[in-house]
Amino acid sequence: MIAASSAAGRFSLNQATVKHADLETAVRVTAEAGIPSIGLWREPVAEHGLAASVRLVRDAGLRVSSLCRGGFFTVPEGPDRRAAIDENRRAIEETATLGAPTLVLVAGGLPAGSRDLVGARARVADALAELAPDAEAAGISLAIEALHPMYASDRAVVSTLKQALDFAAPFAPEVVGVVVDTFHLWWDPELAEQVARAGRERRIASYQVCDWVTPIAADPLLSRGIPGTGDIDFEAFSALVRDAGYDGDVECEVFRQEVWEADPAEVARSAAEAYERLVRPHLDAQPAESAVSRSR
Amino acid sequence: MIAASSAAGRFSLNQATVKHADLETAVRVTAEAGIPSIGLWREPVAEHGLAASVRLVRDAGLRVSSLCRGGFFTVPEGPDRRAAIDENRRAIEETATLGAPTLVLVAGGLPAGSRDLVGARARVADALAELAPDAEAAGISLAIEALHPMYASDRAVVSTLKQALDFAAPFAPEVVGVVVDTFHLWWDPELAEQVARAGRERRIASYQVCDWVTPIAADPLLSRGIPGTGDIDFEAFSALVRDAGYDGDVECEVFRQEVWEADPAEVARSAAEAYERLVRPHLDAQPAESAVSRSR
Repeated sequence: MIAASSAAGRFSLNQATVKHADLETAVRVTAEAGIPSIGLWREPVAEHGLAASVRLVRDAGLRVSSLCRGGFFTVPEGPDRRAAIDENRRAIEETATLGAPTLVLVAGGLPAGSRDLVGARARVADALAELAPDAEAAGISLAIEALHPMYASDRAVVSTLKQALDFAAPFAPEVVGVVVDTFHLWWDPELAEQVARAGRERRIASYQVCDWVTPIAADPLLSRGIPGTGDIDFEAFSALVRDAGYDGDVECEVFRQEVWEADPAEVARSAAEAYERLVRPHLDAQPAESAVSRSR
Repeated sequence: MIAASSAAGRFSLNQATVKHADLETAVRVTAEAGIPSIGLWREPVAEHGLAASVRLVRDAGLRVSSLCRGGFFTVPEGPDRRAAIDENRRAIEETATLGAPTLVLVAGGLPAGSRDLVGARARVADALAELAPDAEAAGISLAIEALHPMYASDRAVVSTLKQALDFAAPFAPEVVGVVVDTFHLWWDPELAEQVARAGRERRIASYQVCDWVTPIAADPLLSRGIPGTGDIDFEAFSALVRDAGYDGDVECEVFRQEVWEADPAEVARSAAEAYERLVRPHLDAQPAESAVSRSR
């Protein structure tokens, strides 16, 4: 029997890690690797059909840990913004239909030709206010993902965990939470303080693990690695997440050319092995000792 | 006659912008472009000879705005750390000899094979405590440069202006200050607050302008551009620096392959033109109006 607080049974393979596999293959290799949960993406789900995806995942005995992704709502008011909001509403419905607890939101970058970062950020707050009632009605949470600051102009104007938490603050924690992603956040001098805050405010909707690998890939989006292949201290990071009281799923989400080109079954096994070796022990460990050392 | 608060006479070409030019060429094109000041690098100065460099710059009628660079002191105690500290002491002496007010410090990344970011950061504080008395004795300031978080593992564990200011806090402001560099800091949600704090604490030792250009270059070190070629709002950024009371030199420091391959005389003129058009007007403008709008 697994205690509720145990980190066994909490690992999830994010589908992006086996990006070139179709949904059936992704589900199969996840189940075969003994991984209990999968993080899905909208595009392959649409390709397979939403109802068929629900059946496929259920028949494989998997849970869906999250759906990627909504967001991309930094454009000013007008038809493009309305289309983005509508697209997010569809994503919320899909999340609920798939039985996933959370929809991951990537804010979007500067609108084309704009240098108004402050304005783009203000529009993130507006979009959340529009979408939160839909998420609440659907019984899912929106999870704001702070992306690494190197993506601030072209992908996500939300750049730190503090900022994500500030965006979430006006809403109930079960409606708007945050993603804690090691790759995007590991560098932050305020990491410990903000992860603890995220725990206190009950905002951690997802913990995503992948490594920071240098040199940065020529396409910087693909610079992530399976835990253990880069510079991140997963013991220290996972201990912060554990001490923050997080007991939900832990996704491994890797964008990397070599990983995508490898056999998906092998990738699923490697990711599960990395989780068991580098992450799970530190989620399972009792927080007592670190609490003592912090109080010294 | 130029008022002390005017932004005329405050532009400086950082030598890295014309990296492939030797020191004589860099000094010549700077003076010919009507730029009153130059930011030097230790390696080309050493190649030309320190005393000869002093004469060269003086004969050209230029000031030296800063010397790049010290730092790279994140390794643990031992011979490598002693060598790094000694190297910084030589850099401090060179800064004073060149008549530059400030030595720019790039902290260094994680030591080889280490994932201990917290430890590496603690060693930055230790190094500053060792070097501050030397800087004070030499009559120069050490300027901590926060580098973009994408360089945290391999180049600089100081990643935000807030962190740089926290490192500087134990020292007198004329001994340890900070560099405010648009490329490294533009994404920071706390930019306005921290630039204002840097001004209040009299820590701004240098304002460096260069643009953030996407897509990020295959070598991410070379992703910078001349102001106006990327995503940064130099009006808003320069207004923050102006309102913080900074009245020192403004360096343009660009690392970019196409810029390095261009005619250095043309590059110097382009940089000066970009400063005049995009930066100087906002340093010169009276802060009254923005102060009023802030108080509304």
